[in-house]
Amino acid sequence: MRFRAMALAALATALIVPLAQAEDGYRLWLRYTAPASGVAFTPSNIVTGCDDPSPTIRKSLDELDIAFESLTGSKLPRGEAPGQGALVLASAACNDGFAQTDRPDVSGLGQDGYTISTLATGDGDAVLIAGQSDAGLMYGVFDLLMRTSRGEDVRGLSVEEAPSVDLRLLNHWDNLDRHVERGYAGQSIWNWHLLPDFLDRRYEDYARANASIGINGVSLTNVNADATVLTPPYLEKVAALADVFRPYGIKVYLTARFSAPMELDGLPTADPVNEDVQEWWQAKADEIYARIPDFGGFLVKANSEGQPGPQDYGRSHAEGANMLADALEPHGGVVMWRAFVYSAEEPEDRVKQAYTEFKPLDGAFRDNVIVQVKNGPLDFQPREPFHPLFGAMEDTPLALELQVTKEYLGFSTHLAYLGTLWEEVLSADTYVYGQGSTVAKVVDGALTGEPLTAIAGVSNIGSDRNWTGSHFDQANWYAFGRLAWNPEASAERIARDWAALTFSTGPEARDVIVDMMMASREAVVNYMTPLGLTHLMGTGHHYGPAPWVDDLGRADWTPYYYHRATKDAIGFDRTQTGSNAIAQYAEPLRENWSDIATTPDELLLWFHRVPWDHEMKSGRTLWEALVDHYDRGVSQVGELKVHWQSLEGAIDRERLREVSAYLDIQAKEARWWRDASLAYWMSVNGLDLPAGTEPPAHDLGYYKALEFPNAPGQGE
Amino acid sequence: MRFRAMALAALATALIVPLAQAEDGYRLWLRYTAPASGVAFTPSNIVTGCDDPSPTIRKSLDELDIAFESLTGSKLPRGEAPGQGALVLASAACNDGFAQTDRPDVSGLGQDGYTISTLATGDGDAVLIAGQSDAGLMYGVFDLLMRTSRGEDVRGLSVEEAPSVDLRLLNHWDNLDRHVERGYAGQSIWNWHLLPDFLDRRYEDYARANASIGINGVSLTNVNADATVLTPPYLEKVAALADVFRPYGIKVYLTARFSAPMELDGLPTADPVNEDVQEWWQAKADEIYARIPDFGGFLVKANSEGQPGPQDYGRSHAEGANMLADALEPHGGVVMWRAFVYSAEEPEDRVKQAYTEFKPLDGAFRDNVIVQVKNGPLDFQPREPFHPLFGAMEDTPLALELQVTKEYLGFSTHLAYLGTLWEEVLSADTYVYGQGSTVAKVVDGALTGEPLTAIAGVSNIGSDRNWTGSHFDQANWYAFGRLAWNPEASAERIARDWAALTFSTGPEARDVIVDMMMASREAVVNYMTPLGLTHLMGTGHHYGPAPWVDDLGRADWTPYYYHRATKDAIGFDRTQTGSNAIAQYAEPLRENWSDIATTPDELLLWFHRVPWDHEMKSGRTLWEALVDHYDRGVSQVGELKVHWQSLEGAIDRERLREVSAYLDIQAKEARWWRDASLAYWMSVNGLDLPAGTEPPAHDLGYYKALEFPNAPGQGE
Repeated sequence: MRFRAMALAALATALIVPLAQAEDGYRLWLRYTAPASGVAFTPSNIVTGCDDPSPTIRKSLDELDIAFESLTGSKLPRGEAPGQGALVLASAACNDGFAQTDRPDVSGLGQDGYTISTLATGDGDAVLIAGQSDAGLMYGVFDLLMRTSRGEDVRGLSVEEAPSVDLRLLNHWDNLDRHVERGYAGQSIWNWHLLPDFLDRRYEDYARANASIGINGVSLTNVNADATVLTPPYLEKVAALADVFRPYGIKVYLTARFSAPMELDGLPTADPVNEDVQEWWQAKADEIYARIPDFGGFLVKANSEGQPGPQDYGRSHAEGANMLADALEPHGGVVMWRAFVYSAEEPEDRVKQAYTEFKPLDGAFRDNVIVQVKNGPLDFQPREPFHPLFGAMEDTPLALELQVTKEYLGFSTHLAYLGTLWEEVLSADTYVYGQGSTVAKVVDGALTGEPLTAIAGVSNIGSDRNWTGSHFDQANWYAFGRLAWNPEASAERIARDWAALTFSTGPEARDVIVDMMMASREAVVNYMTPLGLTHLMGTGHHYGPAPWVDDLGRADWTPYYYHRATKDAIGFDRTQTGSNAIAQYAEPLRENWSDIATTPDELLLWFHRVPWDHEMKSGRTLWEALVDHYDRGVSQVGELKVHWQSLEGAIDRERLREVSAYLDIQAKEARWWRDASLAYWMSVNGLDLPAGTEPPAHDLGYYKALEFPNAPGQGE
Repeated sequence: MRFRAMALAALATALIVPLAQAEDGYRLWLRYTAPASGVAFTPSNIVTGCDDPSPTIRKSLDELDIAFESLTGSKLPRGEAPGQGALVLASAACNDGFAQTDRPDVSGLGQDGYTISTLATGDGDAVLIAGQSDAGLMYGVFDLLMRTSRGEDVRGLSVEEAPSVDLRLLNHWDNLDRHVERGYAGQSIWNWHLLPDFLDRRYEDYARANASIGINGVSLTNVNADATVLTPPYLEKVAALADVFRPYGIKVYLTARFSAPMELDGLPTADPVNEDVQEWWQAKADEIYARIPDFGGFLVKANSEGQPGPQDYGRSHAEGANMLADALEPHGGVVMWRAFVYSAEEPEDRVKQAYTEFKPLDGAFRDNVIVQVKNGPLDFQPREPFHPLFGAMEDTPLALELQVTKEYLGFSTHLAYLGTLWEEVLSADTYVYGQGSTVAKVVDGALTGEPLTAIAGVSNIGSDRNWTGSHFDQANWYAFGRLAWNPEASAERIARDWAALTFSTGPEARDVIVDMMMASREAVVNYMTPLGLTHLMGTGHHYGPAPWVDDLGRADWTPYYYHRATKDAIGFDRTQTGSNAIAQYAEPLRENWSDIATTPDELLLWFHRVPWDHEMKSGRTLWEALVDHYDRGVSQVGELKVHWQSLEGAIDRERLREVSAYLDIQAKEARWWRDASLAYWMSVNGLDLPAGTEPPAHDLGYYKALEFPNAPGQGE
């Protein structure tokens, strides 16, 4: 008989990765793989001044063990006393046997601050991490581990770090049935049915990841709230999660449904001035704190999109928020009251409404109320101007709400690094306190002197193995934490750190990935909503283009409401001649943005209604410029694919394959956005495409007919 | 300063498993870890007679590489010619260069059969795996790998294997929005939104697992069907999955919504005798086969629980099934038509209905129609008598439908090995063709001579990392495949093989696990529905006890309908003096089960209405016996916990911890079942508990008040 070796088979085999070592993304940026340059410094041992270490210090030591075992193959021994090459951990909360003189003064760094410095010992220098609190010490440990993982030598460092913002929260829009509203990463990671009895290991790995980037609070439930979470069986489940998170310095928050007293205990009203209602919430707060002594507080969406609220009883947002604040105050809890509101009646211009409703309430809120404001006045679009409430509320703490999950930027498949979007908002100048009054300085209290500061991010985390539905969306979770800690941090620096920890410390590969990330969000703006266009996504699911929709329950739900395209012109006039939303901004923004000539192209159609043949700064017509942006967006995605392919061999095969497949989807959908949008605009303005422009692949009818009944993440 | 080493910290650390090596259950029974006794035989190389191996043979070679790399640390080299110690692969479909004389005659084994034997070569003996088809060869490869993983020496083996059943299918009750009806393992593994562009690696690992146990068909969608899956965009997604499964010998099936012609194309009717309707289905079948040449066929739930069907037009189930069968016949497809029906009108006894409706249709179905019948006449209860249709349909192929997911046996948390339940059904004697007319012999065609045979299992698979929501539920997926291949296989032997592959080949640990599995289902029967009681679960979600419910839309939805407990007696009289359901069974069953004295205790209250003070064979009253069963169920779960704890050190810490937590939940819920049931029975019969019996922990009101609005797996 003849027999042959199987080249083909060998080839096929090469594509299969043994399951155990698979780079499936579960470990996030905590992979602790040895850097390309090797581990620069391995401490001789770990010493700490604690007789009886707190749970937080024990978790910090666990993390050091996990990290160094993975980085070097063996855990660091525990030492009795600090000597040459030791790693010394010290916190004020853990100072027995630790002489004051030996500890650097960290009192000025506040609760969560830390230092990494050199400690001179009898027989040489040791590395000292010192924190005012155990949590601060833990943040220092993670910092040291991240630096080591990136190849840095931590000897001789002189780091002094403290967060600029007090409350750094993730907001999960997770329902109790595990459906995640605007979630694109599987189900909720909270398995309510099996809590409190079964604690999925994911809960602790989730806490580790959050602690590593400084996140110190988690709101577990959807802002479209279900009162059931406030019942005893569910509070027992919540308490079990709080117990897992506590050692990592993370507090639990819940969304409070304003009508809960009626739904849970049959009260006839939820009117905040009603004494029975006030007592109900006080009793509920007492009940919660009896189970969860460090409960963070309530996050509330009221009188918005059909949610119940104080206005149902003719009371103001302040009256509603203060009633809940009074119930939490004795326990030290806070109320995060969302400013994302729009009334049942159709407004002349929806983007004006939050300002209109909340500005008059400035100063009317209790000290433990924070008004939570989205980055822009509309709704987490690929690009918006900053929200005019920033700077406008001088006597009210404002929390910045960012959306980490990509509801409007391509779900989990499109590569869109949001660090640049958030940096754009945080560095935007409100001019309210003169030049340099950036949103960042408003949010961190530098300008307002507010004692209570907060940043919240709407989570993109789910049950998918890689946590966020795509490998690159992990970067948005990471960047959110880093920017919440320091709103003036550089998005590019954050991208570089993340890429090194997640994919490769090799500078070439890392820089390719960083370049992709830095270009990615503008590509999405180009193929979805260029030149200040906004909210053109498919109705309800927000998947794909639907600029033609103009016939929903209310006008301000339709894309048409936002672009108002006619044969002659396109755009929303928000100047004095229009809705005058521009008046909500300070000078010189008001003046600059009132004039097309001084309005940046990227916000042109947000503020102005512009003729199709308007001559742009570039000399081209608006129509030509618009077409060019769509084409640029499509070609930018093509470039992402080329860059990514260049990494073959530099990163693991598995993630290379998965990201490639996602980039193919993004390329297909970018083309879809471009073609469907152009087909519609042409049907409205009757213009031809500029010479040499590729026509849409299908006619408008084709795009209008597409349906997505099972698109993920829809509201229920 | 004083410093101390951290014993506590070291302890905490010991509990953390490095993520990469975690035994998280993903690898199922394909872990390929070296057996305790070592790998008995490692082939010197692999040789095959194929110039150009088929995809199926390439996958078989991939599997050998994955397995031996994991078992021995290195892949087997490819050989040019068979010699001493070689592993030789041969299939009739791949016989170039393979002389007929050298191949054992496998023609008698049919499509999927294979042999493992010794091949004498010039320089010594080789191990030969031979199959009639490439699929048969692949099954042989998996058999050899499982034996090797369990520590068996495969040299000198003389194995001749062939499945007794042609179609071995998993039925997924998965909706297109990824909700799984009666699913307790997360979401559907079919990510419809990202198909066909993104192929999750899970799809191939799922196919590998199925192929390893002989499953050769998969129905992807819920029997409560959505016609959307028959539209072109979804058929493209289905085709992508079919392409992944094809090399593993797995065909794709879909559920066909009977009203699809009306919903998708606006036909005025779905009447099966209407020519437009017939043509619509013929065109749809052509369209499907153009994309999926080996499409398996349709699974249909019609005129049951509100689903549309032929009876809507006064046509019979046969007329409906035959219309679809005619559309599939030219392409070689089959229709699996479910006999789980009950009419809109309330029946006098629901368990009689399938027989009443289908028995008269015997012989009226096309040759490519299989009537799919649940194991029992009610609905996948912890215990039922076998379905009376088995044996009653002499001229109609019957498929046995088993439920792998534990809708009525404690969801994913309760340990309940279903191998014993299924063995009980398969070995049950229908007596229709004389003694020994077991359900197994009816299903595999041995008695009926039916050319087309099938077994279907309702999947328990989801997006959870461990696939099935619990480690032990993997055993039910495994056992289903093994019993579908050989309905006369031993449930205990299957448990032993699974435990060795999944947990430990060490005989002591393995036997402890097998003992736990073999005792587990009877424990569930004892604490949920002893002595022939049935369907006492909470309404809708079927989570927990609710025997008191008696006021639903229709009586046969209520637990009360099934137990009919009054002050004097309990049970459902199905003898001549009652519903006479007993007449649907053959003699001598009819006679035996008509008399309390000759009715087995385990079916007593299923067939008889019995006074509480009835004297049992044991001499105790029925009430005393009932209480004893509940107590036994609770104590059996206690024993499971003790056995499991004895495995500490013998199996990995991670699964030890997870299963322990689940057993704690089971113990808590077993006690809940016992207490709630006793509290209710006592409220009905007014009897005291036997002396020394522990009273329920709460009063009946407490149990009645419990609500589970978010219990998983509910219908939508």
